[in-house]
Amino acid sequence: MKRRFYLNKKDLEEAISIYFKELKYYFSNDDVEIIHSRNAFNRVTGKPIFANENVPSYNSSAMDGVAVISKKTYGATESNPIILEKGKDFEYINTGFPIIQPYDAVIMIENVEILDETRIKIRNSVFPYKDVRKVGEDICVGEMLFPRYHTLTESDISFLLMAKVFEVPVIKKLKVLLIPTGNEIVEPEKKTEEFQIPETNSLMIKNYIEKFNAEVDVNEILPDDFEIIKNTIISKIENYDLILLNAGSSAGSKDFTYYAINEAGRVIIHGLNIKPGKPAILGIIKEKPIIGLPGFPVSCNIILEDIIKPLILKKSKMEIYYDNQFVNGISGKRIHSSITEKEYLRVGIGKVKNKYVAIPLKRGAANISAVSKQDGIVYIDKGIEVLEDGEKVKIQLKREKKLIDKNILIIGSHDLLIDLLADFVKIYDKDINIVSANVGSLGGIISIAKGYAHLAGMHLLDPETGKYNISYIKDYLDKFTLVNLSYREQGFIVQKGNPKNIKNFEDLTKNGIRYINRQKTAGTRILLDYYLGKNNISPENIHGYADEEYSHVNLALKIKKNMADVGLGIRAAAKIYDLDFIPVALERYDLLIHESFLNDERYNLVMKIITSEEFKKEAEKLGGYILKNTGEIL
Amino acid sequence: MKRRFYLNKKDLEEAISIYFKELKYYFSNDDVEIIHSRNAFNRVTGKPIFANENVPSYNSSAMDGVAVISKKTYGATESNPIILEKGKDFEYINTGFPIIQPYDAVIMIENVEILDETRIKIRNSVFPYKDVRKVGEDICVGEMLFPRYHTLTESDISFLLMAKVFEVPVIKKLKVLLIPTGNEIVEPEKKTEEFQIPETNSLMIKNYIEKFNAEVDVNEILPDDFEIIKNTIISKIENYDLILLNAGSSAGSKDFTYYAINEAGRVIIHGLNIKPGKPAILGIIKEKPIIGLPGFPVSCNIILEDIIKPLILKKSKMEIYYDNQFVNGISGKRIHSSITEKEYLRVGIGKVKNKYVAIPLKRGAANISAVSKQDGIVYIDKGIEVLEDGEKVKIQLKREKKLIDKNILIIGSHDLLIDLLADFVKIYDKDINIVSANVGSLGGIISIAKGYAHLAGMHLLDPETGKYNISYIKDYLDKFTLVNLSYREQGFIVQKGNPKNIKNFEDLTKNGIRYINRQKTAGTRILLDYYLGKNNISPENIHGYADEEYSHVNLALKIKKNMADVGLGIRAAAKIYDLDFIPVALERYDLLIHESFLNDERYNLVMKIITSEEFKKEAEKLGGYILKNTGEIL
Repeated sequence: MKRRFYLNKKDLEEAISIYFKELKYYFSNDDVEIIHSRNAFNRVTGKPIFANENVPSYNSSAMDGVAVISKKTYGATESNPIILEKGKDFEYINTGFPIIQPYDAVIMIENVEILDETRIKIRNSVFPYKDVRKVGEDICVGEMLFPRYHTLTESDISFLLMAKVFEVPVIKKLKVLLIPTGNEIVEPEKKTEEFQIPETNSLMIKNYIEKFNAEVDVNEILPDDFEIIKNTIISKIENYDLILLNAGSSAGSKDFTYYAINEAGRVIIHGLNIKPGKPAILGIIKEKPIIGLPGFPVSCNIILEDIIKPLILKKSKMEIYYDNQFVNGISGKRIHSSITEKEYLRVGIGKVKNKYVAIPLKRGAANISAVSKQDGIVYIDKGIEVLEDGEKVKIQLKREKKLIDKNILIIGSHDLLIDLLADFVKIYDKDINIVSANVGSLGGIISIAKGYAHLAGMHLLDPETGKYNISYIKDYLDKFTLVNLSYREQGFIVQKGNPKNIKNFEDLTKNGIRYINRQKTAGTRILLDYYLGKNNISPENIHGYADEEYSHVNLALKIKKNMADVGLGIRAAAKIYDLDFIPVALERYDLLIHESFLNDERYNLVMKIITSEEFKKEAEKLGGYILKNTGEIL
Repeated sequence: MKRRFYLNKKDLEEAISIYFKELKYYFSNDDVEIIHSRNAFNRVTGKPIFANENVPSYNSSAMDGVAVISKKTYGATESNPIILEKGKDFEYINTGFPIIQPYDAVIMIENVEILDETRIKIRNSVFPYKDVRKVGEDICVGEMLFPRYHTLTESDISFLLMAKVFEVPVIKKLKVLLIPTGNEIVEPEKKTEEFQIPETNSLMIKNYIEKFNAEVDVNEILPDDFEIIKNTIISKIENYDLILLNAGSSAGSKDFTYYAINEAGRVIIHGLNIKPGKPAILGIIKEKPIIGLPGFPVSCNIILEDIIKPLILKKSKMEIYYDNQFVNGISGKRIHSSITEKEYLRVGIGKVKNKYVAIPLKRGAANISAVSKQDGIVYIDKGIEVLEDGEKVKIQLKREKKLIDKNILIIGSHDLLIDLLADFVKIYDKDINIVSANVGSLGGIISIAKGYAHLAGMHLLDPETGKYNISYIKDYLDKFTLVNLSYREQGFIVQKGNPKNIKNFEDLTKNGIRYINRQKTAGTRILLDYYLGKNNISPENIHGYADEEYSHVNLALKIKKNMADVGLGIRAAAKIYDLDFIPVALERYDLLIHESFLNDERYNLVMKIITSEEFKKEAEKLGGYILKNTGEIL
């Protein structure tokens, strides 16, 4: 066998770039299997996952205390306590237990004065739903739990079970075959002769790779025989996703690896300009990677860390979570916190104009979605009552910093298309996460003006002009870029079959109609008020005008649960719950772009995705979305 | 059952401090088991581990190329090549293959011109052992592979097998029992009634804890029954190291956990000033921890991360490795690197006067000890020939930064007592690592003067005064603190039975005596030269004076392997290989302390350990150590 020299030694980065390009087909094809969610810890979602159950599934107490009828507490003060009677005005309740009508609020046990077996004294009045976990507070049926390519943590598994997702499509574990070669190699326990070399690399390689959830089979040790090595590779490649040979990767007279790989498939790279690690061989057989690892353990370790690990993570779409780093950032929102307790505030993070902006996720001890979505934690010390927006914070990261740097932060009015986008970006770059927060359309504009987000979603009707968004933005920004995401149908969401026969805004004032509204900052609220004004209807005449929900889906859920008869919302929300929908308006939903984001390649990616046919097709399936002008810059 | 309020809510840090103090007995008692090294990945050493075999176990080629007799290459240059003949002057050799006498060096294949079947032309002369991995280069029999409480990585397992350590004492895996409680709790798949609560915490807790190598058994769900909960705890505690109850930890009317724990054992803490997470209960039963975890998943997650994780790591002595952080530091040594390749330099790190000092570990593709001992990697870019000492470097950390901050960096002349110390410090604080490097006694003084180490070991005889260390130090430092570690016997290490009958320095010049020397910067070399001068012996008359080894143990090994007849070294090295020892001198081995380290609590710990009876006892077992003045400040 001829001796081979390293004729084309490459720098590591260049070698990886060339090699991974050649493996494009390999990386872009997922093998997905469906497994029970209980077994999915540390596995990677192969498809977007949607909730099958509301979390929580009923209104429940967030505290140990008493369930009360909120109206009966009105007027209670320190100096003017109110006495409540058991079975009539209140019931004792434990955390997590259902709140059943007529009860609609909870007073924590610490604030209750027990008078006797049947009576308590209270010194605080409570508003409806105080300390009540509302049905769907954390997530509603049909909402996206995770996009594809999300590595499931222990909390995520819990979240899946809560949302009644018992089966989950995940990327199959990579199957790796490791073939030790060499006449002189023996198992270390069996070494009897002085000059034998103990085979100690296989276990190192196996233990290393299995940290990334792959499965490694170790072949028997092959002799230095070109035909045997070549034929083994050819016969085994069908059953594996990656073959590793060790050693025989250098330029020695017995190094058959190069020739075996090149004859069974093709060698892409032989030799790297690194020390140790030089003798690596990167090859491809039947579109799958085959790699010759150097025999010396330190060289082998380097190739494992710098080539095998990124290759496995890229193929299996896995993320390794880290929690040991802190960054300085700013709060993207004003936060009230408890003065007597240190608060753990879970945050999503976006790096906007080189500042890490921390956006609070859902608070509350029960909202596990915040753990699933967290990029980090901001600790608000005891004694601090308010964290101002823009205030400096120290953030403990819960994901790798270089991945958080890739986050796209979208706040403002939330829309189901943002979730769809969050899934679609993964197809192009599994490492990009979309962090979204619902602060209403106006909140979104302010966030862009203050540099707290990359993008903001909005659908603000100007009652004077009947046009959308631009007049509002001009109050905050002189120059701006606004991109249309979609038009969407707004209308009355009503019970199936429209039993209350609601056809127009006048009908909302009819006797016995329970309306459910959106919060004050929501674009849909402004839309309602616009039509009420136009029709000369006073909000006072609408029963339930003061009852607010924070999203279209939560609003629709309330109607589904027969806690309201009608609400204004988008068609897609009605569709999720199989409710009826009476169209009222076609509104424009736009994305306002932070100027620093315009020259960012992630901006180009977002534009590419939203204007793609695949995205439009999926969006239209949701119902009520019209993407005729999507991507248009306004 | 009476309602309980949180009367003594505590801040988290205070609660942990109180609780862990109460668990002192628990933390200070290790359960150790012996397992096969192949199964020891991610396990923690329960005792210090020593090598049973030299690594490598014979002189072997570090390159693919030709094995040559170095003398026959002398004089070869670019313009004056030398022709070598196969079988007489050279043999082809592959990486890892044995170098057998008369061959003593290797020329890499790239530098060989093949003339025909039997002849090659070379244009470089090579010195003895060029590109030869010398026996014991990475570690010698009897040297410490790992101190106690070292978490074994995949490379460490490989290292154990190379060093023929097939059985390893490790800390037993923690056995954890998780008891879910609550009448209203059901398995999520079995939830049939609207107001049942799905039991989704257990799997989250189990998956979380098992990341730290503990084993979690999940008990059947217990009803809200004080007696049943209490009796289950009492009957199970014998078989577990930790019991967790979930939930029932708050102050609700059905929360029997508090009473059950307090009756079966005692509650130490109930309620924390954190949000979420407040309702945690920390208790002790039969000296073991029992913890009531809050039922809400986010609260539960916080108690897992901030109490359970540190508790488990403290008990199991486990370290979690991180590789995602970089720090700026300086090089503690001048390093020559390859101009054509990017070098991965494994380093130990010490934080000296707020600077991270990177000390290179053994280089070379085969020295896996460097991977085992690494705190980080310095990447020396292609094109850089020399990295100066004191030069700024960026270091990729391979361990958590806050642990690296605790490292004690000891350089200078290495001694076996430093390894002993490295093991002993673990008893007091498992998180302290001793990083040591052998740069010779003089190198140690210079390192302290430059701020490159916390401590330096030395045994430098001043030939003029016959005294140790101080006159040398004064050349570099005006003010200094020097502490005696030990006196130790230096002498002739010879074959068992002293077959060559060596009694004094004159005998070294006798015909047929092969001497093996220490490197020029070594204190033992200075000692030799001192005696040679005193006895008017010229180094030229000692055969092998130019052959150098870098440690006492490597020198003794060379004699054991019959590659030399005699060398000057310490008694402990002779003892390891069961060689004979003829005492020559009793020398003083001192530790020079960097001034910034004097006010450091780790300095006090080192002093406490070296002056303890336990340390002295273990040190004297090694042979030739006399600790009568240990800890004396000079």
